[in-house]
Amino acid sequence: MNNKKLLENLRNVPDFPKKGIQFKDVSTLYKDASCLQIMIDELYEIYRDKGITKVVGIESRGFVVGAALAARLGAGFVMCRKPGKLPWKTRRATYQKEYGEDCIEISEEAIEPTDRVLIHDDLLATGGSMQAAISLVKQFSPEKIYAGFIIELLIEGLHGRDCLDKDVEVETLLRID
Amino acid sequence: MNNKKLLENLRNVPDFPKKGIQFKDVSTLYKDASCLQIMIDELYEIYRDKGITKVVGIESRGFVVGAALAARLGAGFVMCRKPGKLPWKTRRATYQKEYGEDCIEISEEAIEPTDRVLIHDDLLATGGSMQAAISLVKQFSPEKIYAGFIIELLIEGLHGRDCLDKDVEVETLLRID
Repeated sequence: MNNKKLLENLRNVPDFPKKGIQFKDVSTLYKDASCLQIMIDELYEIYRDKGITKVVGIESRGFVVGAALAARLGAGFVMCRKPGKLPWKTRRATYQKEYGEDCIEISEEAIEPTDRVLIHDDLLATGGSMQAAISLVKQFSPEKIYAGFIIELLIEGLHGRDCLDKDVEVETLLRID
Repeated sequence: MNNKKLLENLRNVPDFPKKGIQFKDVSTLYKDASCLQIMIDELYEIYRDKGITKVVGIESRGFVVGAALAARLGAGFVMCRKPGKLPWKTRRATYQKEYGEDCIEISEEAIEPTDRVLIHDDLLATGGSMQAAISLVKQFSPEKIYAGFIIELLIEGLHGRDCLDKDVEVETLLRID
């Protein structure tokens, strides 16, 4: 029922940011107060008993529900950003994405070995950016890593979940096939 | 007391992103669970009785506390983004910033005339990006507009508050002079 409301409010934008891409526009879910609440409530129910101490959000749509979820879970929030955006010392990973190559960075002191980390992004497509974030977070040897998305795309042969490290538990609210 | 904790955890990064800029690194406040909670609690107390229906966050550090605050207030969250990042139809404003010129965009259907809007960013320096966001939000003629920041910089002659439209109520948690 809740998922039905999310699916109804999710906008499909053809040919964005490039011709041929069917862009899932989560901004229509963020701007609707009840959809925003549903997403946070449902992710909170999944992660409330996992002892999460840090939520890592992937820039920049992953900051929205990621930060709200961190606050709800009583965890800290860490930004995983595009290169050159974070001050101070950072670690960097490169990855392939649906439309080109990209880089992400995380602060040198983002995570402690005692942390239990949830990495959040709005959408799982090829899995490239999430796997890059996982590889960065693993460098800190935290106790546990989870990956949580709002949407998992299974269209056009996509199966990004298969590209993520197997020791990372993956959860998604909506699967679109 | 709370503000003392925030100030203690806020990192100053000299010469970022350009020589001569003293960058206030809020990422150290975001990653600390108790600091994150303090910021959201204190802003929630300011805005809880204002009937806020939409929180607009300015990309991308403004998404963090902005989105968490939206969820706490039971409001929707709207992203104010760099050009070309938002799909669908957008409105755009250009502004001067501390180190160059920039543009921001908002979705064509982000705000309704019945909305009461809080625009959030992490930091008030020159006020350029916030005033650009205010001018964008005003195009939708919402009932009321508030501007809320974590930090207000009053160093080196900065007084960004004076550059913001006078009918917008401005609140900040920390003033640094």
